Amino acid sequence: MSKISYISDLSSWESEFYFFIPVKVRFSETDMYGHLNNTVPFTYFEEARIEFLKELGLMQKWTEENHDGMVVVADLQCDFLRQVFFDEKLKVFVKAESVGNSSVDLHYMAKNEKEEICFVGRGTVVQFSKKFGKAIPWSESFRKVIQENFKVTI
Amino acid sequence: MSKISYISDLSSWESEFYFFIPVKVRFSETDMYGHLNNTVPFTYFEEARIEFLKELGLMQKWTEENHDGMVVVADLQCDFLRQVFFDEKLKVFVKAESVGNSSVDLHYMAKNEKEEICFVGRGTVVQFSKKFGKAIPWSESFRKVIQENFKVTI
Amino acid sequence: MSKISYISDLSSWESEFYFFIPVKVRFSETDMYGHLNNTVPFTYFEEARIEFLKELGLMQKWTEENHDGMVVVADLQCDFLRQVFFDEKLKVFVKAESVGNSSVDLHYMAKNEKEEICFVGRGTVVQFSKKFGKAIPWSESFRKVIQENFKVTI
Amino acid sequence: MSKISYISDLSSWESEFYFFIPVKVRFSETDMYGHLNNTVPFTYFEEARIEFLKELGLMQKWTEENHDGMVVVADLQCDFLRQVFFDEKLKVFVKAESVGNSSVDLHYMAKNEKEEICFVGRGTVVQFSKKFGKAIPWSESFRKVIQENFKVTI
Repeated sequence: MSKISYISDLSSWESEFYFFIPVKVRFSETDMYGHLNNTVPFTYFEEARIEFLKELGLMQKWTEENHDGMVVVADLQCDFLRQVFFDEKLKVFVKAESVGNSSVDLHYMAKNEKEEICFVGRGTVVQFSKKFGKAIPWSESFRKVIQENFKVTI
Repeated sequence: MSKISYISDLSSWESEFYFFIPVKVRFSETDMYGHLNNTVPFTYFEEARIEFLKELGLMQKWTEENHDGMVVVADLQCDFLRQVFFDEKLKVFVKAESVGNSSVDLHYMAKNEKEEICFVGRGTVVQFSKKFGKAIPWSESFRKVIQENFKVTI
Repeated sequence: MSKISYISDLSSWESEFYFFIPVKVRFSETDMYGHLNNTVPFTYFEEARIEFLKELGLMQKWTEENHDGMVVVADLQCDFLRQVFFDEKLKVFVKAESVGNSSVDLHYMAKNEKEEICFVGRGTVVQFSKKFGKAIPWSESFRKVIQENFKVTI
Repeated sequence: MSKISYISDLSSWESEFYFFIPVKVRFSETDMYGHLNNTVPFTYFEEARIEFLKELGLMQKWTEENHDGMVVVADLQCDFLRQVFFDEKLKVFVKAESVGNSSVDLHYMAKNEKEEICFVGRGTVVQFSKKFGKAIPWSESFRKVIQENFKVTI
């Protein structure tokens, strides 16, 4: 796994995850090659991300109808390390790797029941104002939550 | 095909379709059984339905941000007659079978390149007001369009 | 709900479900109308169906690589009774309504956390031989399982 | 766009694309934020990739039932530059950026009808043997095709 640009040291990177969601691979998520289609991990990442942001007390606001701020995904990537099959039970982990003025870089890791890493990923999300069409800096309370939970550079 | 409750005479039913959209089966739409996953035809039906309603001059309004009326799907069904595989080119046909006060019963038929029927279906859509939370009767102009294009009972 | 052809008496129909899977609506399963896209319940039905067939001791065989028999979906339908939104927790119930020589008619019902029925459905699955390209009659043991668990007409 | 690690000079990078597939955004591909869900571009990339490999004379073999080699996706990434909405017509471009012993690095770019870049991406695919469970070097004929079509380093 030396080729993955966003992981400098795998074991320390891996040890920083504590939040995960359980996912079971659906039949409709497989493809004719017999394994999980490679577009599906991004769906898992989205679900994990939202649960993670909820845990940090953020997501509720963003899905309220009249709330102006929303979380926009700036980029996403995934490295596929091991085939995943129908009915496998995965843990999809997510952590905040670093925080910018109005963005967070989230990292992802999925493990199967044997605790093997199946795929990893990352992506930046940005807090965005629909009304003003631009990024909104994080509130102090959000920064606090992030800092208390992660040793991230702010 | 005698078991399909919404088709009384197949050849006359089949002959009433004229509108279709072309669809090519995506790799991500197959499953580990090697064929088109059975949840996907409903996606094709949706695409065909929207294009059909556009053709009748309806859909534009419904997707405008401040327009109150929207098309709500009341029910959907599909009968799978023939396996469909990756990369097959289908024609997904749609027609209006009958029109109610604020609803239309749409029928669907998908054919492969050999002109074989692969799956058929139907479903009722209802014109619905978000503001009032109830069905809205069709306008006279819509009824006219439908009547001119289909020999439907109104 | 008098219009739903496959439900003669709702309260007795409803009372016959005991098996369900929990499902939480994903963000990617919503559409721009703000609710669960109408193609997604069929994915939930599939997941519920497979877990149900597993519970009856059937599915394992069907997904083994060299097993000849597979479960083919002959038809599917869904009636949408109530809007479903992002993050709602549903119970997706499934039961065997009647059993044929090589087919089962499965019925579905999804309830939200208020125990309101959101959508219902049904569909026939057929045991099918890949090698012979035709339906295979149920084994005696399968019939026994079905009869013990359901008061179905065989 | 200076942040995108795999694009050193945008205008020269952009000018090297010639192959594309047309895609129209489906209703079911939008989400409750009103735009294309961020998991969907990977589906478009897959479709573009397969058509591209077909164009190079490769894909046919890989989907034949008894063919041992298959194309495995090693990683995928996408940068979202502009919101995409229901019914937009996109051109999804793909090109080979560099070729390894048994892998190709493919790059992607999607443009809307105004010729604006909406999202870009990349990902490595590897030719893989199911039987031997390992990567298979490209044939000479494949290398020739790639070299004739792209100024890639081999």
